[in-house]
Amino acid sequence: MERRKFLKDALKAGVGMAVGLTIPEVASAKGAGKAPPLPWPYVKLDPKKVADKAYRGYYEHECCDGVFAAIITELQEKVGGPYLGLPLTMMWYGGGGVAGWGTICGTLNGAALIFNLTCKDFKPMIDVLCEWYQTTPLPTYVPCEGPYCKKPFPKSVSHSPLCHVSVQRWCKIATVYFGETVPYNSKKRSERCARLTATVAAKTVELLNAYHFEGFRPKKIKGKQKTKMDCRLCHEVTMKELS
Amino acid sequence: MERRKFLKDALKAGVGMAVGLTIPEVASAKGAGKAPPLPWPYVKLDPKKVADKAYRGYYEHECCDGVFAAIITELQEKVGGPYLGLPLTMMWYGGGGVAGWGTICGTLNGAALIFNLTCKDFKPMIDVLCEWYQTTPLPTYVPCEGPYCKKPFPKSVSHSPLCHVSVQRWCKIATVYFGETVPYNSKKRSERCARLTATVAAKTVELLNAYHFEGFRPKKIKGKQKTKMDCRLCHEVTMKELS
Repeated sequence: MERRKFLKDALKAGVGMAVGLTIPEVASAKGAGKAPPLPWPYVKLDPKKVADKAYRGYYEHECCDGVFAAIITELQEKVGGPYLGLPLTMMWYGGGGVAGWGTICGTLNGAALIFNLTCKDFKPMIDVLCEWYQTTPLPTYVPCEGPYCKKPFPKSVSHSPLCHVSVQRWCKIATVYFGETVPYNSKKRSERCARLTATVAAKTVELLNAYHFEGFRPKKIKGKQKTKMDCRLCHEVTMKELS
Repeated sequence: MERRKFLKDALKAGVGMAVGLTIPEVASAKGAGKAPPLPWPYVKLDPKKVADKAYRGYYEHECCDGVFAAIITELQEKVGGPYLGLPLTMMWYGGGGVAGWGTICGTLNGAALIFNLTCKDFKPMIDVLCEWYQTTPLPTYVPCEGPYCKKPFPKSVSHSPLCHVSVQRWCKIATVYFGETVPYNSKKRSERCARLTATVAAKTVELLNAYHFEGFRPKKIKGKQKTKMDCRLCHEVTMKELS
């Protein structure tokens, strides 16, 4: 049904008029609209433009989709083709570490999908992003709109790719910074996550630009015990139990 | 460039021959193949068929894509339309808790995207799946092919949606069961994850069938401290630090 609509649109846009084919005839073309194999072509994007989009995107469909849609809409506009087949809200589920479960930070999950779509070396690219994420004071993005326009915000180092660890560490630092308790369910924490969404989206684009246009080659991180996270962050007790 | 290739393929498939349009003329059709808004239509699927596909899919592109591609290929065949625009290896990145980082179990990440694509209530659907995942002895699927054909395998309760916790708990139980150390990087552990991929894919389809055809309505789980995980599993020490 949808394929018919797509082809109907294509016909409306000019193909059909010169042709005189009926819609069912066009719709019967096998493989029409089928996604080509990955990776898909990437063109150089502007990290600042993507960051601004991602900041706004956070307040619409949360962190994961914020990163994803900010980059995909740019690629839909500049490359078109297969990117048009991806629905813009499909990564909404990744918000709050997957539907609020506090597992992987949604910004990383959204960016990871972008790497999978655009890079042969998507795994080491994800490694580079995660390593940067957990060792860098974030967020660095400052918006030029909204209630916190141009206001500085505290930064924290997460030491982890996990949403709830990252959030709790920031809240602790923000509580000292603002001189009042900043809980995980506050507007300030949302704003921090919006800025983080913008920051990670910009970093993802910088890495993609470097990979595709500046010869950057990422180095894969070796894991152990089925993780690349630093076990010591959480497990003084349970690692013994597990070993 | 890719759009041109895609349209070239469409032309080859039959549209062009009868038409005589040049590729640039067709490529200029604006909005061709644009994804319609979510959720997309869902038809009843066979959990057993999907499980068998997912089991094989694990050995091709790991756990996350194993669940995702097993369900999407069925929907591509039975619904077609917008599902054809999704590339089958796009969730490969989710393997091993996102590129081996050991965060969210890839099977849950892949299933979560399926819920986002097909259900308005995707968040509580994810809650139901995660809660089942962390409280049920898994995996239950037994393959009828491959080196472990029809062989029983030990089950474990993960108490967590995290890959590396889930894996380590299973390895501990498997070590007792098989009477020899079963490390995280063993063939037996891979087979366990292949069976888990099949088990979660089947459960996802059962939940989708129940939601779309049997009136099942999921209940959202309330989180705290930006997570729905049980903090006590890991944090006897660091929760104090964070509070």
